[in-house]
Amino acid sequence: MSNQTVWDQKIITLKSRSRGFHLITDEITRQLPELSKIDVGWLQLFIQHTSASLTINENADPTVRMDFESHFSKFVPENAPYYKHDYEGADDMPAHLKASILGCSIQIPVSRGSLLLGTWQGVYLGEHRDFGGSRRLVATLMGQQK
Amino acid sequence: MSNQTVWDQKIITLKSRSRGFHLITDEITRQLPELSKIDVGWLQLFIQHTSASLTINENADPTVRMDFESHFSKFVPENAPYYKHDYEGADDMPAHLKASILGCSIQIPVSRGSLLLGTWQGVYLGEHRDFGGSRRLVATLMGQQK
Amino acid sequence: MSNQTVWDQKIITLKSRSRGFHLITDEITRQLPELSKIDVGWLQLFIQHTSASLTINENADPTVRMDFESHFSKFVPENAPYYKHDYEGADDMPAHLKASILGCSIQIPVSRGSLLLGTWQGVYLGEHRDFGGSRRLVATLMGQQK
Repeated sequence: MSNQTVWDQKIITLKSRSRGFHLITDEITRQLPELSKIDVGWLQLFIQHTSASLTINENADPTVRMDFESHFSKFVPENAPYYKHDYEGADDMPAHLKASILGCSIQIPVSRGSLLLGTWQGVYLGEHRDFGGSRRLVATLMGQQK
Repeated sequence: MSNQTVWDQKIITLKSRSRGFHLITDEITRQLPELSKIDVGWLQLFIQHTSASLTINENADPTVRMDFESHFSKFVPENAPYYKHDYEGADDMPAHLKASILGCSIQIPVSRGSLLLGTWQGVYLGEHRDFGGSRRLVATLMGQQK
Repeated sequence: MSNQTVWDQKIITLKSRSRGFHLITDEITRQLPELSKIDVGWLQLFIQHTSASLTINENADPTVRMDFESHFSKFVPENAPYYKHDYEGADDMPAHLKASILGCSIQIPVSRGSLLLGTWQGVYLGEHRDFGGSRRLVATLMGQQK
């Protein structure tokens, strides 16, 4: 009865976004009403793509997200002379690299029905293709019921 | 009876591989027959080394893995003038850095007995030493039984 | 009775440290006596900041940590001409980038009351600000009781 473990798993489809970094915390949590039932647990978000990423960073000033795009596009360049995988476009191989540098999943602790993010933390989608289309996430929530 | 939480944890020893990135999804799942019993859950893979990494990326074209090796070897160079840790060989300090940039663990959602990977996603071993030898992973599977 | 799932979640406040990489394995485990009760499970550490990071790397030679600081400060430079987010100081935007490259959380498998780290693995705090102050971690331990 008490201490019951609860699981909730669903696919969340994110609308198509431009290349760059986008704050998606609210879009995610709006689709997870079950979060409010968890006393202690974890939410994992896992993106099912190899040219987009998930990371956690500053949720306030949008220039941080712009600087992310500038930085990663400089240090993971298009058209590097050593790329062999180039037939899907100049943005493709850098997108794969950025996806692994930043990672395809995040896991956030849950306490008393809320995500235990720091005050300035938010969830970023890294869209690394010029035209990536909509993106699929697996949201897996697991914890002990209140 | 219903909703029972199941745990399975084992050490998987990966055979010795050359420096570079290697697709190991099948080698891993073959050793996890318990996966088929999980209705909803997670598989975590954790590599117990500091000069190899785990990441998820494109499972089809092998040139992606080649480009990963080219890129990381350029942006995490050998013999950088600022390295102090050099007595284990020129490939050692870059290997430590690559291990942390890419990460030592991945966690994959499980649904109805299968990994919930995207169509193009596979598990990569990043072998960052010239002669890294065999590598040990801890595979921890946890979920609700079917 | 048997197979009971146990949760323990707490905030750990890390003392203020200088910019660079710091080994914090012992400081963390000393504050987690509940670890000894877990037969199989996970410990997740999640830092509630966007200018510090957590990663796992070599626990022995301190020059590895020094080389981490040298490398990341070169490849994620201060005062890059493309930064727009600069009003919090030259160390701020690079700190956000390093936080996402390295990540804000780690998850370690637990077996028979101990962390299943490899022989040479330890937990690093990456302090990416010049004066970051004390840092808050959420430690979430979950597993099956012995």
